[in-house]
Amino acid sequence: MNVYMDYAAATPLDPEVLAAMKPYFSDIFYNPSSPYAPAVKVRRDYEQAKSTIASIIGAKSGELTMTAGATESINLAFGAYEGHIVTTTIEHPAVISAAKLHDCTLVEVDPKGRVNLDDIEKAIRPDTWLVSVGLANSEIGTIQPISKIATVIEKTRADRLANNNKTPIYLHTDASQGAGQLDLHVARLGVDMMTLNAGKVYGPKQVGCLYAARSVRLKPQIVGGGQEAGLRSGTENVAGVIGMARAMTIAYERRDSEVRRLAELRDILQKALAEKFPDSVISGHPKHRLASHLHIAFPGIDGERLVFGLESRGVLVATGSACAANKGTRSHVLKAIGLEDSVADGSLRLTIGKHTTRQDIDDAIKAISEVVSSEAERTR
Amino acid sequence: MNVYMDYAAATPLDPEVLAAMKPYFSDIFYNPSSPYAPAVKVRRDYEQAKSTIASIIGAKSGELTMTAGATESINLAFGAYEGHIVTTTIEHPAVISAAKLHDCTLVEVDPKGRVNLDDIEKAIRPDTWLVSVGLANSEIGTIQPISKIATVIEKTRADRLANNNKTPIYLHTDASQGAGQLDLHVARLGVDMMTLNAGKVYGPKQVGCLYAARSVRLKPQIVGGGQEAGLRSGTENVAGVIGMARAMTIAYERRDSEVRRLAELRDILQKALAEKFPDSVISGHPKHRLASHLHIAFPGIDGERLVFGLESRGVLVATGSACAANKGTRSHVLKAIGLEDSVADGSLRLTIGKHTTRQDIDDAIKAISEVVSSEAERTR
Repeated sequence: MNVYMDYAAATPLDPEVLAAMKPYFSDIFYNPSSPYAPAVKVRRDYEQAKSTIASIIGAKSGELTMTAGATESINLAFGAYEGHIVTTTIEHPAVISAAKLHDCTLVEVDPKGRVNLDDIEKAIRPDTWLVSVGLANSEIGTIQPISKIATVIEKTRADRLANNNKTPIYLHTDASQGAGQLDLHVARLGVDMMTLNAGKVYGPKQVGCLYAARSVRLKPQIVGGGQEAGLRSGTENVAGVIGMARAMTIAYERRDSEVRRLAELRDILQKALAEKFPDSVISGHPKHRLASHLHIAFPGIDGERLVFGLESRGVLVATGSACAANKGTRSHVLKAIGLEDSVADGSLRLTIGKHTTRQDIDDAIKAISEVVSSEAERTR
Repeated sequence: MNVYMDYAAATPLDPEVLAAMKPYFSDIFYNPSSPYAPAVKVRRDYEQAKSTIASIIGAKSGELTMTAGATESINLAFGAYEGHIVTTTIEHPAVISAAKLHDCTLVEVDPKGRVNLDDIEKAIRPDTWLVSVGLANSEIGTIQPISKIATVIEKTRADRLANNNKTPIYLHTDASQGAGQLDLHVARLGVDMMTLNAGKVYGPKQVGCLYAARSVRLKPQIVGGGQEAGLRSGTENVAGVIGMARAMTIAYERRDSEVRRLAELRDILQKALAEKFPDSVISGHPKHRLASHLHIAFPGIDGERLVFGLESRGVLVATGSACAANKGTRSHVLKAIGLEDSVADGSLRLTIGKHTTRQDIDDAIKAISEVVSSEAERTR
């Protein structure tokens, strides 16, 4: 018996997605830049896949630059201009690392992991060209008020116009987490740039893109043959992009019912564990939180021992984010929301996904209860 | 009937390679950074694949940085240091574009497409930190004397030591073309950096790597979670790298017999066309040339019309390189080897590969003869 509860770290490729990719591996494998008809068909299919992705986020295909995953997309976004960047203390390491290549301000979040609009506004300087806030946090699942942040950006633009400050200002969101659960419509969100990642929505790994509105002038980080309108050279990952389009379409079509299903399952899990362990601490926003996420800490207990104890019972979970997990450092997110070390160290990130069943939830409740109890016994 | 003769532009994914990749799509899809045993196995398999690739080129796994294809690998190599770069006029657009971000000298080549050692030596300045020469040219197939160029680099190092010039100098080769046909052993070649591309050896597209000797200090171009020893962040393309290792292993094991087979087939094709069309011009080095490549021009005839005429007869070929093909510009390589425009414009690049049969060659000879004759008739 294996219960996988680490969907935030990686999702299995959907067999439907693999089926969509397959013809492009060995049958119509042509270089989309080649001149003959079968290659022209590949080019057309590739562009069609981009259009599909674009339409899901309410954008035009020409506004997407396909990248090798979210990290490259973020680096491309952040490399567009020189100048000051505002982001938050709980972003993914890719965002924080890319921001730190610039002069940057990391805005703090509240104990639920939400950023305050006033804090964003205060952090914006006359030379700030980018505000980047993740759509949802990968560790605690908190969803940010992106469309409200967009109004702050709008206001800043109006002020700059009035003050004859010609510095452009853009809003970027890393939508890697929660892309299968949240509205991604760029106009409704009010973002100028958005990072997407196929690998988090049952698509292929190392496939992603950056949406950038036409007003943003991206600067290519990888130069060469001039693919992706010169913004990202290299022979196109045709199968990968076809797969991403299929994965995002599936996620989009099933989003509402899947979110309801996940929330119901997650709430059963949360309720059972909270009742069983009244001292446990649940992180993330109670309402504005991904339906897939339950971040729960058992104070005084060693989270790593929990992970291995659960593994021996066939339940696969994470402590903190996978990116930080193998570095032996405490999660910067938990620190940012003010979780004490003794609490943070006893935390599990349980993230469920489309293959999670009610049986999995029951099995997980049983396994977690046993392991936490036995660890509590041991450390008493 | 389809005869594919554009293996230099793209190769079909080997079914054996796809089979090797497949478990990592939906079964063991785990994030290699996750802590539980199935993910640790994925990490181990990933590292094993890197070791396999490394051992084929006589390197250590820690000297490889996996990238999304050759273009990114080249950009990573060229971004390592500031300073002057020497390369040639016939390199792939990725090399030339990356070089042009620096102060650079493009060394000319002889009419066979070979670079002259003296010219390299003369182009090296006291502040030159990188010499980059492609192992084999993608358009005309000419193979460069890399190990001899390495002796020039060695000499430069000795001179610099004597003159107390502390600028390091490195030799990089883009081995994307010919990786399935040539010795890739980095010590025998004498290179400090090498770019490899899975997509050219029946592996997945957008998978490649940069070999860099320990003495080279690469500068990450994509920052984030710290994967690839901090040199290239982003969740690893596990299936892709597993596929690349398999593809390179197959290519390596069958190299000698395959090169003989390809050379024999190519020579039949070349002889037949040269006899049929005595005015035709064959480019590339007669001896130091990839066995897969035949670049042949029919002066006064429109190469694009040939491509489409051949396509209607089921033979898929290229004019110039695929990267340049859809831009309506003349190939910079043909210009560099001094081919007159009227000759260059009538050229075909015929590249064969592992699925090419003797029957394909005969069919191609027949189709090319017919199409060229009919075009010659038309333009008379």
